[in-house]
Amino acid sequence: MLRFKGDFDTQEIDLVCVEGAYQLLKAEQVEGLVGYYNLPQSSLVLCDEISSSLLEETARIETIAVIGIGGSTLGIKAIDRLLRSKTANAKKIVYFENSDPVSIAQETAQIEYEKTLFIVISKSGGTVETLSIFKHLIATFNISLQDSKKVLVVSDEGSILSQFADHYNIKRFVIPSNVGGRFSVLSAVGVLPLMLAGFDVASILRGAQSFGERFWNRQEDHLLHKAAFYVSNAKNHPINVLFSYSDRFEEFGKWTVQLWGESLGKKNQKEERVGLTPISLIGSVDQHSFLQLIIEGPLNKTVTFMSVEHANESLIIPEMNLPFLEKSDFVNGKSFDTLINAQCHATMQSVAQSGVSVDEIIWESIDETSVGEMILYYELLTSASGALLEVDTYNQPGVELGKQILQSYFQK
Amino acid sequence: MLRFKGDFDTQEIDLVCVEGAYQLLKAEQVEGLVGYYNLPQSSLVLCDEISSSLLEETARIETIAVIGIGGSTLGIKAIDRLLRSKTANAKKIVYFENSDPVSIAQETAQIEYEKTLFIVISKSGGTVETLSIFKHLIATFNISLQDSKKVLVVSDEGSILSQFADHYNIKRFVIPSNVGGRFSVLSAVGVLPLMLAGFDVASILRGAQSFGERFWNRQEDHLLHKAAFYVSNAKNHPINVLFSYSDRFEEFGKWTVQLWGESLGKKNQKEERVGLTPISLIGSVDQHSFLQLIIEGPLNKTVTFMSVEHANESLIIPEMNLPFLEKSDFVNGKSFDTLINAQCHATMQSVAQSGVSVDEIIWESIDETSVGEMILYYELLTSASGALLEVDTYNQPGVELGKQILQSYFQK
Repeated sequence: MLRFKGDFDTQEIDLVCVEGAYQLLKAEQVEGLVGYYNLPQSSLVLCDEISSSLLEETARIETIAVIGIGGSTLGIKAIDRLLRSKTANAKKIVYFENSDPVSIAQETAQIEYEKTLFIVISKSGGTVETLSIFKHLIATFNISLQDSKKVLVVSDEGSILSQFADHYNIKRFVIPSNVGGRFSVLSAVGVLPLMLAGFDVASILRGAQSFGERFWNRQEDHLLHKAAFYVSNAKNHPINVLFSYSDRFEEFGKWTVQLWGESLGKKNQKEERVGLTPISLIGSVDQHSFLQLIIEGPLNKTVTFMSVEHANESLIIPEMNLPFLEKSDFVNGKSFDTLINAQCHATMQSVAQSGVSVDEIIWESIDETSVGEMILYYELLTSASGALLEVDTYNQPGVELGKQILQSYFQK
Repeated sequence: MLRFKGDFDTQEIDLVCVEGAYQLLKAEQVEGLVGYYNLPQSSLVLCDEISSSLLEETARIETIAVIGIGGSTLGIKAIDRLLRSKTANAKKIVYFENSDPVSIAQETAQIEYEKTLFIVISKSGGTVETLSIFKHLIATFNISLQDSKKVLVVSDEGSILSQFADHYNIKRFVIPSNVGGRFSVLSAVGVLPLMLAGFDVASILRGAQSFGERFWNRQEDHLLHKAAFYVSNAKNHPINVLFSYSDRFEEFGKWTVQLWGESLGKKNQKEERVGLTPISLIGSVDQHSFLQLIIEGPLNKTVTFMSVEHANESLIIPEMNLPFLEKSDFVNGKSFDTLINAQCHATMQSVAQSGVSVDEIIWESIDETSVGEMILYYELLTSASGALLEVDTYNQPGVELGKQILQSYFQK
């Protein structure tokens, strides 16, 4: 369960805009323009399909190799990291993402061919990193594309990758065309590899579904208020920091960075450059790094603190008095859980006192339901902010030029 | 070897300020106010000492447990990641940093007591995470503090941790008092664990030394020009992005974030809040995440692109024509090295075309000499920027309040 604390509704936000943003999102949902709103429901059907058709026949697989990048891996990695420590016997997932040859060699060395299932994920189907690495793996392991149990594909209906899959009779899963890559984690993109790895995906989906229902019933308006506050302060607070107090949020933070940065950073309807810059930090580590800049640097940031009430209460700081080190004895006998949560709250208090706008998201514990809730929360926050910024939240036209230039280099 | 490309000197920078910054740094060095300038030389002596006194007796150790946080680990991790793939038989280093109980449990599970050497690192000696985790490890493994071969300490002379070490006759190493934590990687903080793990630290130091000599001889003035450009544009470009095209730069990026953020984000002599916000990205992965925001979002960023000319030229994209996937065949037969470097340059070109100021740092390869050069480059760039911002580059007063609040929670 998640709790949200913030006082955005008492700050200067325009309630007319808030209402407008809600109606815009509602229209996107009702008209089917944006598909991720309905994934929690529709993907439950997919779970059943995977359960009955694939779970048993892949039971002896030990490693899942995911070949993808960006929206095709960030969400999977986020959930994998958040839930692995509580998921007994989850299978190993090896991610082939970057075109970095040193990484590819290291990842390839982790693959035992006989025990591995390869899942190729690309929404467009044409991602150069993904296809190049796929070719490398085919060549290295002599992957038989005719073997229907070795490779799975997730892509848009009709994409070149889907056509390739059909040509070889490779089993494939579809990303709905109205679901953008960075909003696709609850589609087959995330559901397929995570279920096959042994994660309880249905519970994640039900968590997301319940949050969505509350949002549409106007019981989570705080996120609309937060979006309105962020957008109306975009000029003086162009940077939004997420300060998460658990290492397990590292990959989730990266997922939010893509979602926030790529969705909102673009030209609006008046061709003005708008957007908000996301930064993901981990506490307490980054108290010893980035915090000084937040506290005393320019007041150009907002900070969301995220903490976990119950992570592992059995790990206690021993009642040990070491000579000369008495200074740290004030936490003796407390759990590390208590320490890290106190660090979160002390830091939040000091940041707020320095004049920075803060809010807080509290996880009772990191479980499937909360993960689902959190994913939908961030996606809806992004959609609402995009509506208020008057941008197309779901495209990414700015990255096309680089791809064209890349191709031109090789045509010389 | 590193090559630096940028045209900061032709942009509107104030050469009088550049000269002033150089003279300020020179005075800091000559008067001994700032100690890191001399570490490349002085730590070579430390290398000899470690070679003769510790290398042999720790030869059978298989794992080094580093207990520290912030400036006590970020630099070690950066070098570890950059050089591990080229360092044969480097010993495993396990980092105990965060007060996160789930991480501590996972890290503890990696320790085989008989084969492990523990190194406790804290400049002040009183870091609550470090001391609490150290107590946990003492209790878990029943570490004998009397055993002079099990624990080493790195701290300031006279700190409570140093006094503790002397009490138990634990071998300890000193961080010079004029070397700040985030500038300490080339002191015993980095030298001791990295040497014992088998890295060629002397070559790193010599790389740093040669870069320092060139800087003091005015052969690396480009970094002064860059600092002047960044500082004079701090209001309209408050965010500095480092976009590094190799996964091996992940931890190095985090090291630069601490160095840049914590050194420059503070109140200047007029009590004005100043500072520049660092962001570290990895290519090509973050082309699929953050790039859209750089290209089309607000023009409030500068971007430094970093690439490696020769990483692993033997990993070739196979000459394979897959039906329907011909779109990606334009890179067939090329190395992944060629692909990732082309991606870096294509992205840089597209970012520059969108009106963002870019510069470039090219590594011929990732080797010890270049790592040393790069460390000193970033430290000097930070010092020069701090001088131009008129801040005390070497303190971090903003984080004290949070520590006081933390203590007050436990005194209730």
